[in-house]
Amino acid sequence: MSTKPKVLWIGAPFASGAGWDELSHIADVQACTSKDRQEFIQDLKGKYNDITCIGRTFNMAQTGRFDEELVSHFPPTLKAVCNSGAGYDQVDVEPLIKRNIQLSNVTTPVEAPTADTAVYLVLATLRNFQEGHDLMVKGKWVPGVKSAGSKLGHNPSAKVVGILGMGGIGRAIRDRLVPFGFKKIIYYNRSKLSPDLEQGAEYTSFDDLISNSDIICVSVPLNPKTHHLLDAKVLGKMKKDVIIVNTARGAVIDEAAILDKLQNNEIGFFGSDVFEFEPKVSQDLLNLPNVVSLPHMGTHTVEAVLGLESFTVENIDSVLRSGKVKTVVPEMAKIDFGHQPLV
Amino acid sequence: MSTKPKVLWIGAPFASGAGWDELSHIADVQACTSKDRQEFIQDLKGKYNDITCIGRTFNMAQTGRFDEELVSHFPPTLKAVCNSGAGYDQVDVEPLIKRNIQLSNVTTPVEAPTADTAVYLVLATLRNFQEGHDLMVKGKWVPGVKSAGSKLGHNPSAKVVGILGMGGIGRAIRDRLVPFGFKKIIYYNRSKLSPDLEQGAEYTSFDDLISNSDIICVSVPLNPKTHHLLDAKVLGKMKKDVIIVNTARGAVIDEAAILDKLQNNEIGFFGSDVFEFEPKVSQDLLNLPNVVSLPHMGTHTVEAVLGLESFTVENIDSVLRSGKVKTVVPEMAKIDFGHQPLV
Repeated sequence: MSTKPKVLWIGAPFASGAGWDELSHIADVQACTSKDRQEFIQDLKGKYNDITCIGRTFNMAQTGRFDEELVSHFPPTLKAVCNSGAGYDQVDVEPLIKRNIQLSNVTTPVEAPTADTAVYLVLATLRNFQEGHDLMVKGKWVPGVKSAGSKLGHNPSAKVVGILGMGGIGRAIRDRLVPFGFKKIIYYNRSKLSPDLEQGAEYTSFDDLISNSDIICVSVPLNPKTHHLLDAKVLGKMKKDVIIVNTARGAVIDEAAILDKLQNNEIGFFGSDVFEFEPKVSQDLLNLPNVVSLPHMGTHTVEAVLGLESFTVENIDSVLRSGKVKTVVPEMAKIDFGHQPLV
Repeated sequence: MSTKPKVLWIGAPFASGAGWDELSHIADVQACTSKDRQEFIQDLKGKYNDITCIGRTFNMAQTGRFDEELVSHFPPTLKAVCNSGAGYDQVDVEPLIKRNIQLSNVTTPVEAPTADTAVYLVLATLRNFQEGHDLMVKGKWVPGVKSAGSKLGHNPSAKVVGILGMGGIGRAIRDRLVPFGFKKIIYYNRSKLSPDLEQGAEYTSFDDLISNSDIICVSVPLNPKTHHLLDAKVLGKMKKDVIIVNTARGAVIDEAAILDKLQNNEIGFFGSDVFEFEPKVSQDLLNLPNVVSLPHMGTHTVEAVLGLESFTVENIDSVLRSGKVKTVVPEMAKIDFGHQPLV
């Protein structure tokens, strides 16, 4: 029997090259075999009763939500939950803090591919490209019908972009949008960035961003404060032809409210990679001509999947060697966990 | 009867705000009413027998090709053909030179919207976004099926982009791609650009661009030298998973050859806004999962349509006032037309 500290990995299979081989020298890494939450809770009292670290992906089939109930079953040996993604909205932070368990997320590897997705959705909506493509495939491009009858789009020079949430992903979106020559790029963030981080984007209030933007890129984490941040009332304050692009989390927007506004032409376009109850999405929403939808593909690349996992392995490695995760979530930044190395 | 010089406009309706009102002070501007080429040739001997300038859009219904035959019917009063687009492949340059008639095209207003279209197609193909969207709309996004079963895409950092043709549009594509962090951006052009125009892109031979690029953005004008520039032989020298993006003209690529290569998985992806026999496009090509098609939407924006027309009006105005178009096509750059003002 191994005397190395046990690490449990939940979700996606191990990616070759992500650093697991190196980690296995100091840890006993196991893939979670529990079929569902009930079995997982049983296993936490049984074969997982001495795990020191959990790595987890965006997948709740085996465990359900990491909420107060689930956390209460974690063994006292558990020091850290390492989330293999930027968003950790499936994990409740407070119960972990009470149990002295750290939570880390992935920062840099998600920024570029998520921002690339946001730019795609901005172009798709601004230019009616999805509509043009669909009309063409349906055989509507015939002599005399320019661009298959698709509506004219717009040039970036005619539009003000508002970036809602100017963290790593928001700034990566800004960097990519600058050369397109938008009329102006404004942003709202909990706090104004330093000029070297602003890089030409202009800080504005939440209300001003909502009412002055032609295109709004949503890039805030989902948490109790941002849940339904864009509700019917806020959506109602936007320009009538506003384009909303969401690459954050679906529940930042009240999906029933945006469907209603889209159906009533009170919003111009909705481009979204994320949905409130995904993978369940209303077919009414998907079928609207002014909606461009993607099935949560923000980090759906060969390089991002590997990068996310490698980054998570680094966090696990850091916990084992120093007692401390490398990228603790902001809510825990000021907490002293009394770090002790495990190897 | 007006004594002002006559200007004939063929194609799209006059856009309000494009400068026609100002032009009408010095010219008698008429919209072409000929129903087809035969009637147009008759009208050139009749009611259009004293026109001084023609403005034309990408639309051959009323005239057919501006070839030697058509040009032979132009009245001796005609000084210039002003093309309301960057590409003038529907106009033969030599017959115009022989008749001492200038040809102008539109340069700057097409660059941004066409480059925006190229970036959209690069992202759509690199990330499999079109496939993901289609699977989602078809209801394939169900629990346990990540991103609706779409194939993993790639990050720009893993890819070399080759820009084929580094004129205004090619450089605008380059500018927009830089912040995405591609591994390298290389380009081929008739001649190497000066370092201040290269801006970080690396000059390479045609053969090296073809064989070393992961993504090829086609941005050359269509003319007899570039017709089928990418034929079966050249396509066969590319990487097996190459992405080809075409926002220039369809006939730069041998469409039958690329369809064959795509069907045999000898090419990774084809993203195209233009087609060899548009609006006629093979449904076999359109239905391939590794093809992202658009119905010639490169300048299909409110601002671009107006910008193209305004720019063309400026060329017409310039002919009338100075005898000389503002942006003569490169083939005519060194020719002395013996310019004389017409007003």
